[in-house]
Formats: sequence, C-alpha cells, structure tokens
Amino acid sequence: MSTVFPKSTSFISQPLTKPHKSDSITTSVSFPSNSRNRSLRTSRVRAGLIEPDGGKLVDLVVSEPRRREKKHEAAGLPRVRLTEIDLQWMHVLSEGWASPLRGFMRESEFLQTLHFNFLNLDDGSVVNMSVPIVLAIDDDQKALIGESKRVSLVDSDDNPIAILNDIEIYKHPKEERIARTWGTTAPGLPYVEEAVTNAGNWLIGGDLEVLEPVKYNDGLDRFRLSPLELRNELEKRGADAVFAFQLRNPVHNGHALLMTDTRRRLLEMGYKNPILLLHPLGGFTKADDVPLSWRMKQHEKVLEDGVLDPETTVVSIFPSPMLYAGPTEVQWHAKARINAGANFYIVGRDPAGMGHPVEKRDLYDADHGKKVLSMAPGLERLNILPFRVAAYDKTQGKMAFFDPSRAQDFLFISGTKMRALAKNRENPPDGFMCPGGWKVLVDYYDSLTLTGNTRLPEKIPV
Amino acid sequence: MSTVFPKSTSFISQPLTKPHKSDSITTSVSFPSNSRNRSLRTSRVRAGLIEPDGGKLVDLVVSEPRRREKKHEAAGLPRVRLTEIDLQWMHVLSEGWASPLRGFMRESEFLQTLHFNFLNLDDGSVVNMSVPIVLAIDDDQKALIGESKRVSLVDSDDNPIAILNDIEIYKHPKEERIARTWGTTAPGLPYVEEAVTNAGNWLIGGDLEVLEPVKYNDGLDRFRLSPLELRNELEKRGADAVFAFQLRNPVHNGHALLMTDTRRRLLEMGYKNPILLLHPLGGFTKADDVPLSWRMKQHEKVLEDGVLDPETTVVSIFPSPMLYAGPTEVQWHAKARINAGANFYIVGRDPAGMGHPVEKRDLYDADHGKKVLSMAPGLERLNILPFRVAAYDKTQGKMAFFDPSRAQDFLFISGTKMRALAKNRENPPDGFMCPGGWKVLVDYYDSLTLTGNTRLPEKIPV
Repeated sequence: MSTVFPKSTSFISQPLTKPHKSDSITTSVSFPSNSRNRSLRTSRVRAGLIEPDGGKLVDLVVSEPRRREKKHEAAGLPRVRLTEIDLQWMHVLSEGWASPLRGFMRESEFLQTLHFNFLNLDDGSVVNMSVPIVLAIDDDQKALIGESKRVSLVDSDDNPIAILNDIEIYKHPKEERIARTWGTTAPGLPYVEEAVTNAGNWLIGGDLEVLEPVKYNDGLDRFRLSPLELRNELEKRGADAVFAFQLRNPVHNGHALLMTDTRRRLLEMGYKNPILLLHPLGGFTKADDVPLSWRMKQHEKVLEDGVLDPETTVVSIFPSPMLYAGPTEVQWHAKARINAGANFYIVGRDPAGMGHPVEKRDLYDADHGKKVLSMAPGLERLNILPFRVAAYDKTQGKMAFFDPSRAQDFLFISGTKMRALAKNRENPPDGFMCPGGWKVLVDYYDSLTLTGNTRLPEKIPV
Repeated sequence: MSTVFPKSTSFISQPLTKPHKSDSITTSVSFPSNSRNRSLRTSRVRAGLIEPDGGKLVDLVVSEPRRREKKHEAAGLPRVRLTEIDLQWMHVLSEGWASPLRGFMRESEFLQTLHFNFLNLDDGSVVNMSVPIVLAIDDDQKALIGESKRVSLVDSDDNPIAILNDIEIYKHPKEERIARTWGTTAPGLPYVEEAVTNAGNWLIGGDLEVLEPVKYNDGLDRFRLSPLELRNELEKRGADAVFAFQLRNPVHNGHALLMTDTRRRLLEMGYKNPILLLHPLGGFTKADDVPLSWRMKQHEKVLEDGVLDPETTVVSIFPSPMLYAGPTEVQWHAKARINAGANFYIVGRDPAGMGHPVEKRDLYDADHGKKVLSMAPGLERLNILPFRVAAYDKTQGKMAFFDPSRAQDFLFISGTKMRALAKNRENPPDGFMCPGGWKVLVDYYDSLTLTGNTRLPEKIPV
C-alpha cells in the first residue's frame, strides 16, 4: 500500500501561529515522515498539559543501547506467540496509553478492572481502567512455560518482540470477563469472537519490556504518535486546552460542526488556544466498519477541503483495538486520551456501541455512555463534553444542531444509511460531507466490488 | 409456626460480664420478646463502633405521630404492588442496612452500582454498593403512574405500606443488569429467575417513607434486629471489636472452630472484648437451602450445646434476600454489616457462590470473593479476615484447620454431602456438628418427606 499522506506533515506539524505558553519549556520537535525520534520518549512531561495517570507516562520500549542484550535474553526464554490483537495491546501498553499499567494485567489488576473499572495505586489514588488488557495462553503454552518467571512474546514469524517479566498465570474466566465487560454474553460480539471465545484458558500477566518500537509498515506509522509525542506536539502548538474526539467512522459535516462548535465554546470559556485531537482508532474493528487506511484518506480530504482547521487540529492514530463495549469502553477511550494530554473529551450518543448481536435493538442505552463517563472513577480531572445531536437541516441544506421544535426539517443519516449510499454510488444530500471525503468512501466500496472482498485486508503489525 | 426461641432473650441479651467501655454512653436497653422499641431508631450512634456508611444510619420508617397522616396520603396515590423480594429490600432499606441509600435506586445509583460497585457521595467520599436495590414495574403500572411524582407501595392485599417520593422511572436493562451483577447470563440463576427475568421493563427509584416497621409475624421478628438495635446491643455488651459471620447454612463445628479462633486472634491483637455477630441471612434463598426457621432452630442448639459462647455471640437475622452473586454480593454482605457495627468480616471460600447453573463447575473462582472484597471501594475501613479452611480431621475425630502436609488425614464434607446425609437420616462423623444441631437438620428433612414438599413454605412478610 502506498503512502497515504504525500505531504509528510500535513496533519501534525502545521506552522505555529500561536505563541508558546510562557510556562512551558519547549524543545525543537519535528516529525520526520517515516521514523520517530525515540529519544523523545524518555523526556519528562512538561508543565501545562493535564498530568498523565499515575503522574508519569509509562514507556516500556527498551532503550537503544540495551536492545541487543535484551534480544539475546529473549531468545532463551519460553515463547508465547501473539495474535494481531495481542500485538495491538502490546503497542498500547508500550507507549503508556494505559499508564500506569506496565504490562498485561495480573489477576489483581484484572479483577479490579472487571469489578470496579479502576486500579488502586500504592499512594492511595486511583486511575480509571475499564477494559481488561490481558494475554491469553492455552494449556500447552502454560506447560511449556513451566516454572519460568519470564517469557518472550513472539510475532507470527516467531521473532521475539518483547519480554514479559515476573509473570503470573491465572485462570481465564471467559464467560465472566465477557459478561462484566460487555453486559451481555450473546454470541456475535466482534471482539469476543475474534479474541476471547477461542483464546486459551489461562491469562498471563507481567511487566513488559518491548524490544523495538512497534511499527506496522503500512504507510501510516508516522501518524501513530505516542502519548509523549502527542504531548510534545500539543505543547509545541501552545495548546492551553486539548479536546479529544474518538472516532472509527468517516468524518461528516455533523462531526465537523460539533468539533468547530466545541472550539468556539472553549474560546468563550476563556481558553486562548484549544487544540482538537482528532483521534481515529487504529486497531481491530468489525468487518463492516471502514478500514483505517480509507478512513485516514477521508480525514485527510476533510482537512484539505477546509472543513476542519489544520492549524488547530492534530490528527493521529489511536492504536487500541475496538471492543464495542459501550459505557465500559468509552472510559478506556477517555482515559487513554488523558495520557495523551487531552483535558476535554467529546462524548456522543451511544459511544462505542453497536446493535445487539441477537436482538433487534441497540446493545446499550444511548445515554448510558455519557452518564457512566461522567461518574467514572479516575476520570474526575477530565472535562466531559456531551455531544449535541447534529442532523441534516433540509431548510438550510447543511448539517446543523437538531432543533426539536422543528423536527420535521431534519434528516438523520445513520452510519448504516451513509454506507449504503456510498456502496450504491449515490450521493448524500449536499452539505452532508465534503465532496473529496465522500469520493474516498465511494472509492472504498468500489475497491471492495473489484476485489470481490467484503473488506480489504489490513497489514499485520510487525 | 410456633415461636422458635422459647427463651425470649437467649441469644442477644446475655448478662453483661464485661465492663462497659468507659467512653461509650450506654442506656438501658432491653429486647422484649415480640416488639421492638422503635424510639431507639432515632437515637444517635454512639462512640466506639465503626461509623455507618455516610456517617449516619438511615431510618426510613415514619415516626409514630406522623403515621396516620402518611397513611392517608398513601391512600390517594397511584399504587405499585410489591413482590416478596421487593418487600425484603424495602425492609433492608428502611432500617439503613444500605445506608446512606434512602430508597430504591434511581438510574444514577443503579449505573454506579452496576459499573463501579460504589456510590459517590456529595462530600466526595464513596460508599460500597455492589448489588442493585431496584424496584421493577411493568408498562401498565408505568401508565397508571402517569405524571405523578409519588406512588404508594402496597402489599399483596393492596394495603399501602410505604410511599416512594420524587420518583424517577427509567428503563430496566435486564440482560445488562444480570450480566454485570452475576458475571453470567446463563438460565437458572435463582434470584434472577425469581425476581428479574419476569419483572417489568421499567425501574422506579425514589425516596422511601415506610409506614410501619416491617414485621413477618413468623415468631422470628424479635431476632430481626435493625442495625441500630444491633449497635445498641453491641455497645451494651461493651464490644471493642465486632466480627461478623454471614451464613445461610447450618453451623457445623468447622464454622464454630473458625469463629472461636477468630476471637482468639482478636484477643491476641489486644482487643479486650471481641463480639461475634452470627448473622444468618433471612430473605429469599434458593429452594435447596435450609429455610430460615430451621436454620434458626439449629443455631439455637449450637449455642445451647456450648459450641459457641453465648456471652460473646449475638445471633440476629440479616433481612436481605440472597442473590448468589459471588464476589459482587460478598461486598454487599460486608457493607451491610459495617452499618450494623461490625469492623471485622470473616470471608470464606467462594462466598455467596453456587454451582454454575448450566456448566459442571462452580460459578465463581473460589478465591475471587476474598480478593475482590479486599480491593473493594468503600470497604477500606473494614478488616477482612480470610477463612482458614477447616475439615474433619480423622486422626483427632473433630473439625480442625486443614493441614496440607497431611492432607490424607482430612475429610471435606460439603454442604451437598451434609444435606444428603441428613436427608438419609445418616450421621456425620462424630465431632462434625453438635448432636442437637444435627437432629434439627434431620427433623427438617423428615418434615419435607411428611409434607411431600421439597421445601416448606415460608411466611410472607406483611
């Protein structure tokens, strides 16, 4: 797959037009198109942005000088082969999105997550942690590990990519994990079918040492900014407020209206330079979602067409897999963005929701996500910005905030409807999405027809 | 059914042999056999015992002088008829076992319970709350209530017994409630089948005013001490430590050993007068559990036979229904006992657990209950005392703490095995249970055979 963004820094390194915050120590940071400056990973978080959970961003990538030695160690350890989703979680952990978690969960962390959605820290404080980040192994792997206190984690070619230290192996209560995370055990939950149902009967937790920064070599790596890199970029731009928008769908003008309006509201609140973190999810998604590469092309068009202001927008990829676990998962989405420097989080109707896999209804109450988020332990520092519902206003010919007093003037275009239009090469009403962005969607569905696939294969991370 | 305890105060009003704590203000408290002194309910909690959750015990029973007026009000309100389990929860709420909860949960409390197992208080503190205490209504009842802000709650004879004020009606997400509370949605969960599956599609929350103290008129009411009454009794006895033992089964000598040993350990820790709160659960239990009345007879024998010391033991009935929700429910069992004055809680193997209703295994990991309890938010003030496993030591001919170095000497007698022996009129090994207690069990199973029932009917509360 060719590079998606020909202009190397179009999203994330716009020239600074706002002064730096006087109290922030900024260093010269640039984002070369195809490599990350790993030395940034060890620099201290600067004043100004919200503190990461636990006070310090976790970085689990072995420093350059020690990699050879660690690779040698890894070669001699019992091996656990990672699935694609395991690798995505390892990526998430390695960069500190789940700070202060330092590896796949041990039982104590797993139980706190399942029952309370937060972790107790040694100093008596708590951090939110709502989804289990666990690694499953089967009976044979458990036997192979035997009494070893460490294992190496290997990719699909059996190359060691990490060491898991001080391991703890405990039972994988799959049914209970599913019930407590998703609030249902109905068959057909995408993540469950992909990563839980057929996973091993044991979980292995421990402290991670990742041997190399995770790369996917799909032309998008330079947009996979770590929390620390995002913090540096946000400081470089002089952000005094950062509002995160999680998405896994193409951006339409309703989203854009919402983001623009949020910025307006933050300015009204007295912030001088609110920056939008437009943060598409990059890991596992269900088969009928639009794949990451096409979504990134679409997001690029949205910025090119001026629907969002590139100067006040950072687009980056959030490497987590998608669980479709509604109110439980939205906490994870919010918590991870605190670690990336966001102190405002936009939450919409039915976040991380989907249709019930068996019954004819939504899996979650559409309002529970924002309610649960507003009560969630460990997220007290985050400002929750509830979504105002946008719909197509037929009288204005554009997306506008829904006005219930003239409901008949509005047209709701669901994701399903949008996909159906694009598949049939039909156009949505003028003003629903910028033409360049819409063309990407149509091209995507055309490509499916051409290849006979229902979905293009995504590259496997290495 | 005749009165079970002929000696009116055999359990709870032993003569004081320990001096009062010098800093506690004690009043003359006695427990007449068939009525409670309701004026006690309004007295302040005294120094010495652990503070109730939220700082003050909730009392939702209308004071005597206002009852006539409130009954008149109730008569004019839309009516919601309570089931037996609803009544048990109303009882629980009315006496402050769930302090600071003041009525059936509104949606905010319900969501916090489901997702986090605790409630946030206005002062920023948290209290544990792990099981939903909710009231379900159906579409017809909802329509009947209309725009009213208050309803009256009525018993099976349509007599108003409480008013629910400032009501909030919200959707009853049954599947999600079951999954998040029990960690499974398998059919056959006793409480779910009894109280959730066929319940209405709406929940109604609000502030309770209960028109009269709840009575069951089954000869056991005088042993249903409220948290305040228990606190008064514990203070009267000069308790400087209170250790609670939740049970829903007959007491055997393994339990007794554990309770005696706990007292010994507390004395070693420097406490002068640790009191045991032996606290059998009195609400709904599954069909194959021994009914409350027979359990109370059995507990009486255990005290009579001197297996437990009546001077340092308070036996009282905990009015909650049983959910069999394992690690989630054990938190409720512990939290409610804080409100009754207990600062130590004994937790055993697989608390509130049962066999999986469909699969051939226990529903919960036997160790999860005590682990989850030790991490649970809002229970930090409670000292958790993990159970040491007791089994029948064949070399000593008595129950003793299991010694894994000579495992072959021990015999484990499960609840199922115990019930099978009693049903068949066989005797357990000498020293397993005091003979008087065992005879009660045999009599119970005999009575089943005589009536042809699998279970004796329990009286319905009024």
